[in-house]
Parts: sequence; C-alpha cells; structure tokens
Amino acid sequence: MSTETVLPAHLQELRRGTVVLASLIALERPGYGYALLNGLAEAGLSVDGNTLYPLLRRLEDQGLLTSEWDTTASKPRKFYRTSPLGREVRAALLDDLAALTRSVNFLQEASTP
Amino acid sequence: MSTETVLPAHLQELRRGTVVLASLIALERPGYGYALLNGLAEAGLSVDGNTLYPLLRRLEDQGLLTSEWDTTASKPRKFYRTSPLGREVRAALLDDLAALTRSVNFLQEASTP
Repeated sequence: MSTETVLPAHLQELRRGTVVLASLIALERPGYGYALLNGLAEAGLSVDGNTLYPLLRRLEDQGLLTSEWDTTASKPRKFYRTSPLGREVRAALLDDLAALTRSVNFLQEASTP
Repeated sequence: MSTETVLPAHLQELRRGTVVLASLIALERPGYGYALLNGLAEAGLSVDGNTLYPLLRRLEDQGLLTSEWDTTASKPRKFYRTSPLGREVRAALLDDLAALTRSVNFLQEASTP
C-alpha cells in the first residue's frame, strides 16, 4: 500500500476528537453552525458541514451545548453556545490533549537512538 | 447528563488516533506487542491489549509495520518494527498533531474575551 492509500483514515482518526474540543472552545462565543464552520476553517481545522452539523446536535443532546433560535433574520437560525457541562468536558479534553502530546514527545525522545 | 456520562467517549475519540502515532514512534525500536503495551503505559498512554493487538495487525496489513518471529524463546513471539511507509505516515501524523494543537491554541486565544 502507499501513503496515499492509508494516510487519510489515520489523519481523520487523529482529527475527529479535536473537532469536538475545537467546537467547545469556539462556541464560548455563541455562533451559528455555518459561522463555526468558517471559524474552524480559519483556525486551520477544515470540517465538512455533513460532519459538523450532526456533531453539534449530538453535543446539544449530551448537554455540552445549549441552543437558541434567532428569529430576527428572515429565516430563523439556531445558534449554539457551550454550556457549563461543556466547559467541564472542554477542560478535561484540553488536559488530555496536553497529556497526549507529552506522551508522544516522551516516546520520540525514548525511541531516538 | 453528567461529565462522567459523556466524557469517556470523547476522551477515547481524542486518544484513538494518537495510539497509532505512538506505536509508529515506539516501534522504531523493534518490540513485542506486550513490551509496546508497557512502553506506551510508561509514556502515559494506557491502552488495552484488546485494542492494541488488533491495531498492530491492522498496521502490519497496511504495510506500516513489518513483523518477524523470534523463535529463540521457549514460545515463539512476533516482534514488530516501523516500516519505511510507516515512517512516512508517522511524519504526516506528527505534522498533523502539531497543526491540530496550533488550531486549538488559535481558537482559545480567539474565544477568550
């Protein structure tokens, strides 16, 4: 097999958990799904809408995001905000990402001849 | 829902991709599955054998690891080593992990009032 064949799935796996964390960070400032999509892309995290929108609904179901309808526009739009529970989870994920990075660095130092 | 209910799945998602990367780093020095399990735990990455062993076989199928049987012990044991293709994938995943960390930091700075 070639790098082109096997790499995309591994990259996706590495990124998947980060999108949850990134959303919980970015939605500290309330935002629409579409604005979040752009904000993540601006931060270098390109996510597909077909991935992000169901994820936002899942995070809302889990109580990590709250949502409200903005009816002032011509078409009502839902905007999301990180909940207090979402902040707790965010803090734990941030700690974990830092720990994972330390583990990777530790292994790199240990495996370098 | 509580943090205890929702956090484990999100943590697992964040960790999953890292185990592949960590294995590709650690197996720069050839090792048995069991030794790798201990090495990862020592680095702070606790992985279950039921997760790691199938993963190693999958990485071997993908050509990211090579394996050899050590028949000098009383019971033959398979040891794994990162292949040249595995090194390429490792480099790409390391770059991606660094980019993900930058994205998260960028979002944190942008979302702090």
